[in-house]
Amino acid sequence: MKLTVNLGPRSYPIVIRRGALEKAGLLANLNRKVMVVSDDGVPERYVKTLLRQCGEGHLCVLPQGEASKSPAAWQTVLQRMLAAGFGRADAVAAVGGGMAGDLAGFAAACYMRGVAFFQFPTTTLAQIDSSIGGKTALNLGGAKNVVGAFHQPSLVVADPDTLATLPPRHRANGLAEALKTALIGSGELMGIMEREDTEANIERILYLCLEYKKGVVERDETEQGERRLLNFGHTIGHGIEAACGLAGLLHGECVALGMLPMIENRVLRRRTRSVMQKLGLPLSAPCTAADILRAIPADKKRQGGSYTVVRVKAPGHGYTEQADFEEIELLVREAFA
Amino acid sequence: MKLTVNLGPRSYPIVIRRGALEKAGLLANLNRKVMVVSDDGVPERYVKTLLRQCGEGHLCVLPQGEASKSPAAWQTVLQRMLAAGFGRADAVAAVGGGMAGDLAGFAAACYMRGVAFFQFPTTTLAQIDSSIGGKTALNLGGAKNVVGAFHQPSLVVADPDTLATLPPRHRANGLAEALKTALIGSGELMGIMEREDTEANIERILYLCLEYKKGVVERDETEQGERRLLNFGHTIGHGIEAACGLAGLLHGECVALGMLPMIENRVLRRRTRSVMQKLGLPLSAPCTAADILRAIPADKKRQGGSYTVVRVKAPGHGYTEQADFEEIELLVREAFA
Repeated sequence: MKLTVNLGPRSYPIVIRRGALEKAGLLANLNRKVMVVSDDGVPERYVKTLLRQCGEGHLCVLPQGEASKSPAAWQTVLQRMLAAGFGRADAVAAVGGGMAGDLAGFAAACYMRGVAFFQFPTTTLAQIDSSIGGKTALNLGGAKNVVGAFHQPSLVVADPDTLATLPPRHRANGLAEALKTALIGSGELMGIMEREDTEANIERILYLCLEYKKGVVERDETEQGERRLLNFGHTIGHGIEAACGLAGLLHGECVALGMLPMIENRVLRRRTRSVMQKLGLPLSAPCTAADILRAIPADKKRQGGSYTVVRVKAPGHGYTEQADFEEIELLVREAFA
Repeated sequence: MKLTVNLGPRSYPIVIRRGALEKAGLLANLNRKVMVVSDDGVPERYVKTLLRQCGEGHLCVLPQGEASKSPAAWQTVLQRMLAAGFGRADAVAAVGGGMAGDLAGFAAACYMRGVAFFQFPTTTLAQIDSSIGGKTALNLGGAKNVVGAFHQPSLVVADPDTLATLPPRHRANGLAEALKTALIGSGELMGIMEREDTEANIERILYLCLEYKKGVVERDETEQGERRLLNFGHTIGHGIEAACGLAGLLHGECVALGMLPMIENRVLRRRTRSVMQKLGLPLSAPCTAADILRAIPADKKRQGGSYTVVRVKAPGHGYTEQADFEEIELLVREAFA
């Protein structure tokens, strides 16, 4: 299956196909210097499969986890590119999850003011969500994704075969973003998430998620409006993520927990919890409401300013509205006693 | 005088007017958080004039010179913005020369994937050249401008009054870029540079330079073609800059020296040297041809690849061509014995 993200001169294909990683060289021009960025949790053979197809492949493997999305790691990637004599016509490729994609993408965005970038996501989360749309980012101190750029990839290859090696918890983590997509944008997907076996239907789930996201990105590339819908669950979710610290929950797990208070319909909230339970996602946060609230970015709190939050009334029907911190506080205190 | 850089949704005005810095608040929305980035060589009163007009002004002053265009300094700016609770609707402003503009611009490009950016250039170099066009950059180790982004400012204010405090050497440094513009794009400007008093005609010189550059940027924002003309003198010039090290020549001085070997007409080369002498620019490099050649970026040398160089036959008529390293070597050895 193939989708095209239509963004004029920045358009690119998304290839969803078993075994596609082994044929990457037929899908993109890898006959140049390619800096392959990965993490030490990614099976070596995926990285080798890609390197073998590069004209001059270089490898930068970082420790797994959010801590590698740092300015220091970003400088490491850039310095290696410089040392290896990368020019404007060379490229960067990410093989791994969201961390590798965000970091490699931001390095590609900045090296000589932008070089080509390829995404080879190998986690459910990255295949479903983070590898498309061009958001790249670093964390700064404890602040998530506060530094970054919009830099669209030239190609995204989602090879479901690479999900076979993923631990079950990481599969569920990615499916949390599919559940997000179902709630804000696809009643059909909600049906699959509720009634079908997600493993058996993974390609259909990937397709529906990417098809929905690509439409949103096409209509609002730089998140001036509609794209904010994709942040459903993220305001509180990022708070949970930060409150739990590095040893805590995974991104998708936090987003799922962050969605619950923003579902206005009690029945739908119960249905969502059922899907979370079925996927093996946590149903409660290992931190208190006060911890979460403290970890929500401070700037708007101080000024009494408002947050753009996403709410859902019925599956497939997300909408944004402005909420002040007090409203969010009330929802968090109700949900996380 | 006012020019508009027409780049669709990224269009912005350039205001060239004595006293404009004092009225910045009427030209742009400063009624928000503004991170003012400057260097310790900029007279304090310019910075204070701007801060006074900001809703909530913050100040980040870095040591003067290229060494501040570093990832470390960039992180300092970003961390201060984060600590002060800057949001997407806030802004960054540069008050100073090319370093402040490049660094502040890159911070603005990356903070939350891009916030508004204002340029208040206070050197001849920055007013004539570096403040418009959206190129932002950091150096990495000894490699100049190897990291960066295209991020257009929302406003450029070139207030010639601020040039009054500039040491003569720095005025000449900026006028080297005017001489570059004359050679590649404006016979009229060449006439002024050769026959008129540059101090008395500074506003006209600014206008002609910015008018020419804005046209080039409008036609080729991200340097795919025509914009490369603006790099006239820069291939060898950057080599001289790197070979001289931090204690060496200023950017414009190096560019002027780097232009000479690329002028194909002996008479025009002599005329250019006369203008350089009149401006007080150096006519020889304090380093050897071998030093310069060693400092020209290594990547293309190793591969025997080609450089895009700019040549000039007649004033106002620059053109690009491909040259291999051996050709550049020959020109450098002839020019810098």
